[in-house]
Amino acid sequence: MKEVCYEHTVQYYETDQMGIAHHSNYIRWFEEARIHFFDVIGMGYKESEKKGIISPVLAVEANYKNMSYFQDVVVIKVSLVEYSGVRLSLKYEITDKATGQLRCTGKSKHCFINPEGRVISLKKVAPEAYDKLMEMVGEQ
Amino acid sequence: MKEVCYEHTVQYYETDQMGIAHHSNYIRWFEEARIHFFDVIGMGYKESEKKGIISPVLAVEANYKNMSYFQDVVVIKVSLVEYSGVRLSLKYEITDKATGQLRCTGKSKHCFINPEGRVISLKKVAPEAYDKLMEMVGEQ
Amino acid sequence: MKEVCYEHTVQYYETDQMGIAHHSNYIRWFEEARIHFFDVIGMGYKESEKKGIISPVLAVEANYKNMSYFQDVVVIKVSLVEYSGVRLSLKYEITDKATGQLRCTGKSKHCFINPEGRVISLKKVAPEAYDKLMEMVGEQ
Amino acid sequence: MKEVCYEHTVQYYETDQMGIAHHSNYIRWFEEARIHFFDVIGMGYKESEKKGIISPVLAVEANYKNMSYFQDVVVIKVSLVEYSGVRLSLKYEITDKATGQLRCTGKSKHCFINPEGRVISLKKVAPEAYDKLMEMVGEQ
Repeated sequence: MKEVCYEHTVQYYETDQMGIAHHSNYIRWFEEARIHFFDVIGMGYKESEKKGIISPVLAVEANYKNMSYFQDVVVIKVSLVEYSGVRLSLKYEITDKATGQLRCTGKSKHCFINPEGRVISLKKVAPEAYDKLMEMVGEQ
Repeated sequence: MKEVCYEHTVQYYETDQMGIAHHSNYIRWFEEARIHFFDVIGMGYKESEKKGIISPVLAVEANYKNMSYFQDVVVIKVSLVEYSGVRLSLKYEITDKATGQLRCTGKSKHCFINPEGRVISLKKVAPEAYDKLMEMVGEQ
Repeated sequence: MKEVCYEHTVQYYETDQMGIAHHSNYIRWFEEARIHFFDVIGMGYKESEKKGIISPVLAVEANYKNMSYFQDVVVIKVSLVEYSGVRLSLKYEITDKATGQLRCTGKSKHCFINPEGRVISLKKVAPEAYDKLMEMVGEQ
Repeated sequence: MKEVCYEHTVQYYETDQMGIAHHSNYIRWFEEARIHFFDVIGMGYKESEKKGIISPVLAVEANYKNMSYFQDVVVIKVSLVEYSGVRLSLKYEITDKATGQLRCTGKSKHCFINPEGRVISLKKVAPEAYDKLMEMVGEQ
């Protein structure tokens, strides 16, 4: 597995007066797709929380290529860029499902901390997810 | 004191493709004004939380009269409708600051609970706020 | 056909610091379900816009029964309350898909106008949708 | 003038279940501050629209340094990074008003187009704003 795909339908309340999906929503679609990515690698948010693992967003960027419109179905492809054992980088590619047109590319950076805010070792607290991430790194 | 006024400037990201402020934002503006109302009567959210008081929204309604546009400054007037000691009802009137035009009227209902979800008596845990609310009831 | 059902998954960005879906999102979920309702009766937003039909929200209300949490799948059931040929009232019932627990009930009122803001007759501009709505009124 | 400052109060509906302002909101605060920046240099959105000038977001990035909480007042400082006559880059620094703590830094890139989507020359359609931007470039 090298990438995970997730679909989102552009909602009316996501449009702005330019008649397009407001650019801040893409950051939210990244999150939707990222949560799905973590589910797929066995690190679902709810279970992670139980284990005391929090993964805040350290940085995010988006490069807008083409506009998205109300009721467009967009496909958000997430893939691993880097995982050092401490920091994780993901990249995103959003395309229009119907036409394949590229809409946006992006990146995000994360770390894993406990509820007290201390950096934790995934290898210890979530060894299966750690192995899966390391395997993905190896595939690149 | 019978009512509290609060101002909000309509943001670009609050507009939709009809070129107006999306109707769901008015519900958020009610909340902004309500939080200000609670601050004014000495029941600020942060202090209430410390005392273990949570006031969930039980119901909300909005009647849209005229549209609001990007960069409009709207005035949200909040006043007490009813306070039984257990349930609290507030009403809202949103007008355009520049023209006075009525934009929206609304209502919301609330109760006060502790973090375990049990209904609590304001009279016991926040007597000053209780007195202030009762005084406002008396003024009506 | 008496009602239309639509599903929504609660997103992380829809939660608030009480750890639940913020109450304003339910108003947006009503809209998502309503747009689906209009699609089903052959009055999709995009086609309606081309015909010059706009249907603003005149009023909305929500009664919150139980809280919704991150990743809950909720089912929004929309049905017609009233259609006079001019005004349309819809009602909503939101339940948790997994448990069937009632989360929220609500209503919304709408009219149909042209881009100039004048009330229009659906019977003339969208006769099939008019017939479908009248049929639904008859079924009640 | 080298930079413009703008204040935002963190709203309850901007928090998420981690108890902090959701990271997507910072992108919206950048926009609030940017609109203020354009107002200050005499290129307010409303007037620009009348002149047929649209400035879409080409790219945005945010680097989160510290968390923001409900009712924090944050100061967003916007300054010009680059203006080529065609493309404009802005940078942002968000600090907590009370403590001065750095919360977030960011950047955004923009161009100026007409409603048909063709790149336009600010020098021709908005000479005063063009001069002001060039003056700011010179000051760096």
